[in-house]
Amino acid sequence: MSSNLPITTANMAAPTPQNTPLTRAPITSRLSRPDVPDIQEDAAEVDANDIAAALKSNAARQVLSDMVQNRLGTLIGKSSGYIESLSVEVKRSLAAVQGIEHRQVELQKAFKGEVRQLEKKYLDLSKPLYERRSAIISGASLPSAEELEAGEAEAAKEDEYEPLPKDSTKTAPIKGFWLTALRNHLGIRELISDRDVGALEHLTDIRISYDLPENDQLGFKLIFHFSPNEYFEDALLEKTYIYRPEIDWSGDYVYQCSIGTPIKWREERDLTKEVEVKKQRNKNTNRIRLIRKARPVDSFFNFFNPPEIPSPLVMEESDVEFDVDELENRQALDYQIGEDIKDRIIPRAVDYFTGKALQWESEGWEDEFLSDEDADEDEDEEEEEEDNDLDDAASKRGVLRKSTTEGVNPDECKQQ
Amino acid sequence: MSSNLPITTANMAAPTPQNTPLTRAPITSRLSRPDVPDIQEDAAEVDANDIAAALKSNAARQVLSDMVQNRLGTLIGKSSGYIESLSVEVKRSLAAVQGIEHRQVELQKAFKGEVRQLEKKYLDLSKPLYERRSAIISGASLPSAEELEAGEAEAAKEDEYEPLPKDSTKTAPIKGFWLTALRNHLGIRELISDRDVGALEHLTDIRISYDLPENDQLGFKLIFHFSPNEYFEDALLEKTYIYRPEIDWSGDYVYQCSIGTPIKWREERDLTKEVEVKKQRNKNTNRIRLIRKARPVDSFFNFFNPPEIPSPLVMEESDVEFDVDELENRQALDYQIGEDIKDRIIPRAVDYFTGKALQWESEGWEDEFLSDEDADEDEDEEEEEEDNDLDDAASKRGVLRKSTTEGVNPDECKQQ
Repeated sequence: MSSNLPITTANMAAPTPQNTPLTRAPITSRLSRPDVPDIQEDAAEVDANDIAAALKSNAARQVLSDMVQNRLGTLIGKSSGYIESLSVEVKRSLAAVQGIEHRQVELQKAFKGEVRQLEKKYLDLSKPLYERRSAIISGASLPSAEELEAGEAEAAKEDEYEPLPKDSTKTAPIKGFWLTALRNHLGIRELISDRDVGALEHLTDIRISYDLPENDQLGFKLIFHFSPNEYFEDALLEKTYIYRPEIDWSGDYVYQCSIGTPIKWREERDLTKEVEVKKQRNKNTNRIRLIRKARPVDSFFNFFNPPEIPSPLVMEESDVEFDVDELENRQALDYQIGEDIKDRIIPRAVDYFTGKALQWESEGWEDEFLSDEDADEDEDEEEEEEDNDLDDAASKRGVLRKSTTEGVNPDECKQQ
Repeated sequence: MSSNLPITTANMAAPTPQNTPLTRAPITSRLSRPDVPDIQEDAAEVDANDIAAALKSNAARQVLSDMVQNRLGTLIGKSSGYIESLSVEVKRSLAAVQGIEHRQVELQKAFKGEVRQLEKKYLDLSKPLYERRSAIISGASLPSAEELEAGEAEAAKEDEYEPLPKDSTKTAPIKGFWLTALRNHLGIRELISDRDVGALEHLTDIRISYDLPENDQLGFKLIFHFSPNEYFEDALLEKTYIYRPEIDWSGDYVYQCSIGTPIKWREERDLTKEVEVKKQRNKNTNRIRLIRKARPVDSFFNFFNPPEIPSPLVMEESDVEFDVDELENRQALDYQIGEDIKDRIIPRAVDYFTGKALQWESEGWEDEFLSDEDADEDEDEEEEEEDNDLDDAASKRGVLRKSTTEGVNPDECKQQ
């Protein structure tokens, strides 16, 4: 499959959250999957993969979520007096156990620190690969015979593979590589307006860094490289995602905020603003002059000016009406897009460029009722569906209708 | 806060999934949080934490999910001919880039392998702590002065802290520690029936292991330790979660299946079955005999016999009607419960015992409209709500209405 999709006008105003889980699509790639020679690459396995991912990520949370919903009202904040009723001796034991568990939390934090070091180590190991990729995309460097062979071997795993003609030895730059890759991400494509395309054609690379503004600060930075262009002066635009210093309840980092590069737009080239020209008559001189008024518009480049939600105090004291829902949705999207660029687009840019990633993003929760033939029809049905009962919720999850045991090696999953 | 909650009859038949995200509640604990002395432990910070966690985990996915929903039908499986239209020279470059990215995927897999080694290392480091915890809970060992002091120091961070009397030096076993901890997990408590309580009072520890049945198999094992009891012969009940050998699209492992210990129930003590006694008359002899018929019932111990979904072929050929939706929901719950026991209950068992964890599980998406006073009322409203428009969805996420910038150090998040 391949697709280079038409540009749609971005609609960045308050994306409408629905309640269908977006699963992490698993690797079912024949292009870039790790070598696991004993695995059958048939359709059944793809399904099992998807389902397992769905179970892991979202569907399971939903089931639990229901239970929480049902119980929560009656439980929270109410002391049954049980702990208070324990004897002093038991309370002393409990205190000691608390002391011991506190050390466990410190171990958890140390573990995360070591994982972070590993992330840095592997980023360093990735650098030469990312540099080669960038050089070949730009045409600055010729691929080695080895690289070509490896790529051909990967491509040959595709169904629709057509071998490259052997008589050619030339290569050429891949124009618009990153623009195309971004437009094949279903969330990001919504942010890219027609007006953005010219500037994004100058996007030559996206890189990650773990070096944050302050020492020991946790998080990551996305660095967007641009060739010289008529829109802005910056060669690099950065977006930094900062985690809180603590780990959360299940041992993970938690986002604190994100910050972006203020873009140095060339005159009248700011893609995040549209200029309206209005006539104004001077009452005394009767002369007309033109007033230029800029108003913010949807643009991918708003990504570098992430939404901030004012504190309740600020909101109260302000005359401006804040659409908090919209800000929150934009912020949620901001975080998710950052994660997806880091974990998906950068390591698998080729699959986003070819559109293959699009297939995976959709697999795992859509595959049952979205085939080529009836895709449009089902999309309409989807919108009419309600979430309120079990059947509907289950059908929205789609994937879960399929057997999770498909493609599973029965020997590995026998009861003991 | 503390709570020892009344036992409810489990309702394991097809939990009804709703579409409200269950966030990972972050650590806002004064009891077991890591030492980060420069952090203000005020209410504002708690909120920011919750919100950040919510953004990270579910809300963000929901926003993206909508976009996918809206676009999917028109995109999937359709080739625009773009890739096919590239010149041979560009195709050669693309093939080379594919070859390079393939090596990146291998690095990703090696990274996950190293993280796994780290998990094992930290599990080993945790072992002495878990052993001390277990010994003190059972009363087999006396806490050291150090352990007591550390626990008191942690407890003193609580609002409602009452120092232990200094004149006592005795400790006692903490009876029903694990039963109480499990009953304070909002999902697991639904699985525990009244009949299970007697057996679960014998649960003395839950441990993790990464040693799986087969070499190089990925996943984890939960080991439930039981004291001798009148219900079953096993001293250990195990539940093993196995990952697929591949990593998924974003570099994570994916569940393959789970397997449990077949329990050796003592005669007439199987908690997962209820015996009906029926009279049967022999037509020839006219004698009456009693027929005992066992039927499956809800029980926590079904956890060790995880749901299997038959393959479509098996289902087709079978005379039995399979409720696939129900099986899928049970399977999703099975996976999530395994994760929660591993990542939350085992490292933070004290907080589940005291009920503090309950507070965190609920925070992050419920806090706005569930206060002590109107909890019951809101629960009813909740059930009547529909998911179909933006406002409702946003109010269900609750947390997102609050400012994410509360409690954030403004210096860290200023634009560059």
